[in-house]
Amino acid sequence: MQLGRHISGQFNVELESIRTHVLTMGGLVEQQLSYAMQAVNKQDIDLARKVVRDDHKVNAMEVSIDEACTRIIAKRQPAAKDLRLIMAIIKTITDLERIGDVATKMAYVAIESPSSKETQFQVSLEPLCRSAVAMLHKVLDAFARMDVEAAAEVYKLDDKLDKEYEAVIRQLMTYMMEDPKNIPHILQVMWSARAIERVGDRCQNICEYIIYFVKGKDVRHLGEQSIDDALR
Amino acid sequence: MQLGRHISGQFNVELESIRTHVLTMGGLVEQQLSYAMQAVNKQDIDLARKVVRDDHKVNAMEVSIDEACTRIIAKRQPAAKDLRLIMAIIKTITDLERIGDVATKMAYVAIESPSSKETQFQVSLEPLCRSAVAMLHKVLDAFARMDVEAAAEVYKLDDKLDKEYEAVIRQLMTYMMEDPKNIPHILQVMWSARAIERVGDRCQNICEYIIYFVKGKDVRHLGEQSIDDALR
Repeated sequence: MQLGRHISGQFNVELESIRTHVLTMGGLVEQQLSYAMQAVNKQDIDLARKVVRDDHKVNAMEVSIDEACTRIIAKRQPAAKDLRLIMAIIKTITDLERIGDVATKMAYVAIESPSSKETQFQVSLEPLCRSAVAMLHKVLDAFARMDVEAAAEVYKLDDKLDKEYEAVIRQLMTYMMEDPKNIPHILQVMWSARAIERVGDRCQNICEYIIYFVKGKDVRHLGEQSIDDALR
Repeated sequence: MQLGRHISGQFNVELESIRTHVLTMGGLVEQQLSYAMQAVNKQDIDLARKVVRDDHKVNAMEVSIDEACTRIIAKRQPAAKDLRLIMAIIKTITDLERIGDVATKMAYVAIESPSSKETQFQVSLEPLCRSAVAMLHKVLDAFARMDVEAAAEVYKLDDKLDKEYEAVIRQLMTYMMEDPKNIPHILQVMWSARAIERVGDRCQNICEYIIYFVKGKDVRHLGEQSIDDALR
């Protein structure tokens, strides 16, 4: 009995430590995305280089958290909610790592094709990027508290991001048509916009994992209604 | 002892069944991608609609395999290589599902913006798509046999796919500049091309999981050299 409690106490410490690592990784990814946005908007090549340089930290965290999850499964044989937490974590870090890649890609765009005076135009990715960073911040917050209501709220924010994205693309398309010589540069901006829009989808994935952990229901691919149903 | 053997025998049956489901899912995804390519190239709206209609099958398989993996972990408490196999499967099906999404997106392009005579131009995505389908086929084959040498070979094919993709993009960009009124349609084709290029990255991920399972080494984010090292 004593031993059982001891093992279970130790187990909780280990689980808690993994969860903390996920939040640290999330914080780093959020910072990377935020820096990448600044680098693009302010043409700050040094900051862009820092984002590229730090990408390996995000990658290393993904690998080490994955390893910790596998180790805890093998050693502690978790079941039910503990196991769901580990599964949710394994999936969450994949999405976080990919959001980290988006930051790196944006940083490369800032480094490789700085907009010269001739190619500058009046579409800023800043509002779109701000929305994506805010969505990531909120989903990490929901993850930290394992708050399903908050997760469901964040899930719905993606609609707004999609609309912002579409508006940006329409505007960029107009610029392309008006002045075809800008096409190569505008395409770079479009790729970035699309990558940012994908951040929203990845945040939605994390919302689904939170609901899976708390409610034990897999709501992937089922849309908003199934999330509302799961919360009822 | 007898019981032990019985349990282990039953466990192997369950693991084998999950593995078979992954291969079935892989086969379905390969078919979806292949049909989507045909739908785009032959302007076959009916086939495109079939791809869209069947996407839910891919999604359902992802969810059910994930569930089976969680169940087997809770019930059988696998360790070492068995656990690595389950981890590899959990990650593989995420990538397969996303490749399925690529097929669906291409199908939507075929449905929503069929190239009319005026917007037709001479860039076909067929060779690029064929390369992607071939890469997926080979990685599924490597997965079926858990063949690390084959996985390492497939991994290297992505370079070729990237080069084909870049050539397609360059050509499409030229068309955009020559005739800006085609820009909206050409952009659709570009998004498809980019999605197909990403299929290669996802196949590379699956190669990494195969190596992780067989060799017990996580080679993600480390590049080709680390794969060669792991195989030595």
